[in-house]
Amino acid sequence: MIYNKEPLGWIVEEGSFDPRRTGKCESIFAQGNGYMNIRCALEESYVGERRAAFITGTFNKAMPDEVTELPNLPDVTELKLLVNGERFAMDRGELKNYSRALNLKTGEAVRELEWTGANGAALRFSFRRFVSLDNDHLAAFAMDVTPVNGPVDLVLESGISTRTNNSGSQHCTEGEKRLVDGSILRLSTRTSQSDIPVAVHCAHKFQPAPATSLPVMERRRFVNRYTFRLEKGETLHMEKLACYHTGRDEGFTTYGQPAGTLNADQVCAAGDLCMEKALQSSYEDLLAASARRWEAYWNEQDVEIESEDSFDQLGMRFALYHLNIMIKRDDSRVGIGAKGMTGEGYKGHSFWDTEMFLMPHYLFTDPAAARTLMEYRWRSLPGAFKKAEENGYQGAMFPWESAWLDDGEVTPLFGGADVVTGKSIPILTGMIEHHISADVSWGVWLYYMATKDDAYMEKCGCEILVETARFWASRLEWKEEAGRYEICNVIGPDEYKEHVSNNAFTNYLVAENMDKACLVIGEMKEKWPAAWKHLSAKYDLEALVKELQDKRAKLFLPQPNEEGIVPQNDQYLGLEKIDLSKYKSQTGVSSIYEDYSPVQMNKLMVSKQADTVMLLRVMPDLFDAETRRKNFLFYESRTLHDSSLSHGQHCVMAAWLGLTDMALDMYRHAITIDLGPNMTSSDEGIHSASMGNVWQCAACGFAGLQWHEEGLSLQNSLPSAWKRLSFHAHWRGANLKITLTPGELKVENVSGPKVDLILNGKKVQAAQGETVTA
Amino acid sequence: MIYNKEPLGWIVEEGSFDPRRTGKCESIFAQGNGYMNIRCALEESYVGERRAAFITGTFNKAMPDEVTELPNLPDVTELKLLVNGERFAMDRGELKNYSRALNLKTGEAVRELEWTGANGAALRFSFRRFVSLDNDHLAAFAMDVTPVNGPVDLVLESGISTRTNNSGSQHCTEGEKRLVDGSILRLSTRTSQSDIPVAVHCAHKFQPAPATSLPVMERRRFVNRYTFRLEKGETLHMEKLACYHTGRDEGFTTYGQPAGTLNADQVCAAGDLCMEKALQSSYEDLLAASARRWEAYWNEQDVEIESEDSFDQLGMRFALYHLNIMIKRDDSRVGIGAKGMTGEGYKGHSFWDTEMFLMPHYLFTDPAAARTLMEYRWRSLPGAFKKAEENGYQGAMFPWESAWLDDGEVTPLFGGADVVTGKSIPILTGMIEHHISADVSWGVWLYYMATKDDAYMEKCGCEILVETARFWASRLEWKEEAGRYEICNVIGPDEYKEHVSNNAFTNYLVAENMDKACLVIGEMKEKWPAAWKHLSAKYDLEALVKELQDKRAKLFLPQPNEEGIVPQNDQYLGLEKIDLSKYKSQTGVSSIYEDYSPVQMNKLMVSKQADTVMLLRVMPDLFDAETRRKNFLFYESRTLHDSSLSHGQHCVMAAWLGLTDMALDMYRHAITIDLGPNMTSSDEGIHSASMGNVWQCAACGFAGLQWHEEGLSLQNSLPSAWKRLSFHAHWRGANLKITLTPGELKVENVSGPKVDLILNGKKVQAAQGETVTA
Repeated sequence: MIYNKEPLGWIVEEGSFDPRRTGKCESIFAQGNGYMNIRCALEESYVGERRAAFITGTFNKAMPDEVTELPNLPDVTELKLLVNGERFAMDRGELKNYSRALNLKTGEAVRELEWTGANGAALRFSFRRFVSLDNDHLAAFAMDVTPVNGPVDLVLESGISTRTNNSGSQHCTEGEKRLVDGSILRLSTRTSQSDIPVAVHCAHKFQPAPATSLPVMERRRFVNRYTFRLEKGETLHMEKLACYHTGRDEGFTTYGQPAGTLNADQVCAAGDLCMEKALQSSYEDLLAASARRWEAYWNEQDVEIESEDSFDQLGMRFALYHLNIMIKRDDSRVGIGAKGMTGEGYKGHSFWDTEMFLMPHYLFTDPAAARTLMEYRWRSLPGAFKKAEENGYQGAMFPWESAWLDDGEVTPLFGGADVVTGKSIPILTGMIEHHISADVSWGVWLYYMATKDDAYMEKCGCEILVETARFWASRLEWKEEAGRYEICNVIGPDEYKEHVSNNAFTNYLVAENMDKACLVIGEMKEKWPAAWKHLSAKYDLEALVKELQDKRAKLFLPQPNEEGIVPQNDQYLGLEKIDLSKYKSQTGVSSIYEDYSPVQMNKLMVSKQADTVMLLRVMPDLFDAETRRKNFLFYESRTLHDSSLSHGQHCVMAAWLGLTDMALDMYRHAITIDLGPNMTSSDEGIHSASMGNVWQCAACGFAGLQWHEEGLSLQNSLPSAWKRLSFHAHWRGANLKITLTPGELKVENVSGPKVDLILNGKKVQAAQGETVTA
Repeated sequence: MIYNKEPLGWIVEEGSFDPRRTGKCESIFAQGNGYMNIRCALEESYVGERRAAFITGTFNKAMPDEVTELPNLPDVTELKLLVNGERFAMDRGELKNYSRALNLKTGEAVRELEWTGANGAALRFSFRRFVSLDNDHLAAFAMDVTPVNGPVDLVLESGISTRTNNSGSQHCTEGEKRLVDGSILRLSTRTSQSDIPVAVHCAHKFQPAPATSLPVMERRRFVNRYTFRLEKGETLHMEKLACYHTGRDEGFTTYGQPAGTLNADQVCAAGDLCMEKALQSSYEDLLAASARRWEAYWNEQDVEIESEDSFDQLGMRFALYHLNIMIKRDDSRVGIGAKGMTGEGYKGHSFWDTEMFLMPHYLFTDPAAARTLMEYRWRSLPGAFKKAEENGYQGAMFPWESAWLDDGEVTPLFGGADVVTGKSIPILTGMIEHHISADVSWGVWLYYMATKDDAYMEKCGCEILVETARFWASRLEWKEEAGRYEICNVIGPDEYKEHVSNNAFTNYLVAENMDKACLVIGEMKEKWPAAWKHLSAKYDLEALVKELQDKRAKLFLPQPNEEGIVPQNDQYLGLEKIDLSKYKSQTGVSSIYEDYSPVQMNKLMVSKQADTVMLLRVMPDLFDAETRRKNFLFYESRTLHDSSLSHGQHCVMAAWLGLTDMALDMYRHAITIDLGPNMTSSDEGIHSASMGNVWQCAACGFAGLQWHEEGLSLQNSLPSAWKRLSFHAHWRGANLKITLTPGELKVENVSGPKVDLILNGKKVQAAQGETVTA
């Protein structure tokens, strides 16, 4: 189990060793800095381990029948340790006083243990490691070993391995190995198809010095083999530094300039220099420099929760920790992967998660980072144009899964087994989950509303809104008999349902997309003249507005039926109801697929995740309160929450509906998606969108944060178990400190211009230094 | 340790489980049939395991900076077993009554054990497996599990994985997964560069039937997940069949026809049919069919040794077992890998091992198999022409390492670490270890001498001899001051010595090569007219003979010095002598490279392996007995036997020199190269050439088998510890049964024409059915 260790709310601890948690702990304890992440695989090896290091943007296609993905780069974490000839591993011999903990405050992971091998030698171990927030390229490891019942002979092998791969797919060439300056191990490799040079360096320091030291070069493996003779009570202290550099590191400038194009020699030289410099500092000094960056982060971004259950706080900080290491805040060539860079799940690809689940967090805590994400979408337009063209449409059809800027659609074609046909299940999302294009536009408008960043609108936002609207105009299907436009054969947010018609979420967001496109076309010439120049050179904008308005007016928007239920799609309300209790109480994921094929699932009234509920959440003013409530309760009862995207959004909606107990229950589900008892659900990496959701639960749910043209609104919906909730939110240039206690909602304008607020439904203003309460 | 279990001489047993022997046992217990080999990785997983399945001739180049190699194809051996939720593995919990044994007589491997997990459940396991000698494509596995102290819940996952790779390099596409007929798992993949379709099938039978069964398709992994509830004492019996088919399987005809070119659909269909048919039989029946083939093999090919130490017999049978599974006797598109197909070491490439160490065995036990090997060389001529041209020479320069027919030179460019420079050591053998071309020619002539196969000579042999002689004629260097041709800047058999001049082994074999070329050119027009037609159309053969004779006459052939020592090369006798005792007693390999760089090694009077001793062995009549003796003792004292090629040839020479105790000691070293206590030396696969050497020790050494134009000679040199040695040898169409006892040498002509023999130096003749003694 995962525990909340003292100081409560800051330390995620695995209190006992269980090899079944190998993958989970590698993911949740992963460390990084937005440039790179290293999974927290233990130094010694275990069956089922998945050592991995990922660097943002290094996408590569390993094989002709695969899609591009983030490669698992060479490993530096492995450390082979022979104690009197016996391999050290905690699942053999006797283990005592084990603790493994990630300190969210400093970013350091520490493992302590005592171990007695089969040959009787007992040792005390301490392992520490971090990936630097102060130097993107740097990772550091420390180990202390002390024999406690007699002298021991130690053999230690440590270095770099290119044997790592993505579930068997290899992305890196074997590369060139070189011992630099007699002590630094360097491995220079390339990705096989995208041809990105990658240099990995590592070096070791020991106290006392090893008796012998020997470089060993094997296939795809370059280590030093050290031997030691340690007396009883004598501590061997090791420090290992490693750094990663790639050809995509530098030469990057905003807005469409050529991406970083360092060659292999330059990459190696950058690593040589980095390592040389780092070796002048101790592990402690390097850690302190990184921890100072973490301290600054927490000062700005902490969300404080005083709850009866301190795990509520831990879950929030855990989310914030991962939200900080998953994003490269200053590089708009890259998005955020569905698993961040903590595992190979979803191949490092970006989904609608960005706009719907992650962007709100960044937007209200670090608007510049949100801009990076929304620039990434703009820079991905070539791929969206390509996808539209390939599918016979116009404008920008964003890929369901995005990787490098010009990759276009990268969704794999096949998934798990169809229990009925015995074939791989085709993955249709890349083909027919079209709402992504409207989601991106929704994000663009949200970004603009919260920042009034006209420069972004002029350069990027207008073009996205217009091009996605053009896509929709070409995508809509005229139904003569009904006298309306429809959108058929799609997948909505609920991925259990394929080939549906008029998914409410999709249709409403498409309407919004077209509305906003018309709005900006109307204002563009004055407000964003460069955009107007660019787009009017390509299109007859007047005619385009007319077409959009006409089609928008005739677009079918599903309305509540006589029971007040908005049909999720044309088919949903007529589907067969089955008893869902078996699946509602599932401990794993997707257990329903063990009983039903996708074709069968399509015929059952069961949802994977928030769909119409998502619509209610992202367009909160669409229906009246009673309709929202009815639909929320109806759809929740048919939903298995078989997606990590689901609980958090239900929490927000429940809080908005005043169902604060239910909301807290949903929150606690959301924070246990990765931290909970399920031993395998995080094997492929943590759930990025869920981290954004956890922030949304508190900020948008319990604090009721909503965005309106007329201002930022907040609503105190603190659950009874919580005594205090406080966090910072940025709004139109102001940095607001928001504090909720039972019965009180307080907003301090820490810095920035005077802003309009709506507190518990009441309009107020707050100038810099001013505190308003409700 | 590896034991000799009852019935003695037939069973190789690992008597206790030690995870440090993981790689060794995977290699030595590997099973196969010449078409494919499967390493004997245990069903459950361990750290450091290397599951592998190899199929002859499926060469592929995984990455641009690698060379082509035999790919590790998808795995079918893994079996994940959860006992009451706890993963079964012998290195945890309590293990009792463990035994793992390979029955050389039947080719079956059996593992028995009792295990108690940490949760207290105790079970008895029996695992059995074989790769069929009756159906090249088929492997079969059986398991019995019985709970002994209470009921247990079992979860079992078994199927096919394409996550296997060669030390991290992936050769296979992810491929297409399909459940055929509801129960057969099929995975259809391709090699990434050579584009060979590969289909892998497997299916399971259970008694009793599983409670549930679910197909699981993950990335590069396709398994069925079964669950069982077993009562105390109830035995679950599982049978698993698997088959492999590739696009290179069929359509093969002798002499240069296009190789097998089945497409993916045909390969899948072949597998479907194979599996369907196999599923009609039980494990026992399939095993019996395979065991019958083994019985026929042993009836023909057994070498019986009655020794004070029955391990002498086991070591021989172990060698014969591997000699049988490493060769595809009827497919001349493929050679024999330096590790057979038991591991990824040396990448499945063929070396001079073929002619010098392996071919004699096949030639005297199954001449048709020897012809296959010698045809492989002829079919590889295009690669040899290419290599000569690339290096500025004429004729055929055979690759030091050979793979597919037209690959040419495939030696990798870099090896281990240079301890002085910190760089990878360049591998020069592919560039300058030239003797291979003369070795091939030596093999051609040996093959012809022992078979008088004029059809081979006419089609293949003459061309090889002439083209290699043409290469040498262009390769020789005229030294004006000495008035002779020399061969400088080469590596001889002793690979510690690079860039040497006039390696005696090389120069003498080159002379022999040129002599034999002149001989066949002289006789060709009459004896092998098609060869004459082919070659005389390309060359002025008369002029060629003149050139060859002239150069041959002026080729420098190193002579014994005043102490009677033939210099290994121009430099050797002047090198620095160091104390070698430290390295002579090494337990691992290449320990001297931990102290010296290749450049330093070049300056020391130390040899890796038989070099001049090899010359004495392959050209036994070159020097008088006293010179042979002196040179043998001198060079042996400077030799670390740091190559598996060394001990066996020293054994033969020692026996010839009457040093039978020393010969027996060398034999025992040779049989422990793979079976001995070194836990890691066989990790990358068994040592094929060593297996051929073991046969040579007995046949050529202790029985003194030599080949001469005037007949086959035998000499009784039985060591005192041996009471009897008997084996079959084929000579010019006759199948001879040879039996040695102390003081008696008996030869029975079992079948075939009358042959000339030289027994203990005396000429005799033996007609069919006749037995002669000496």
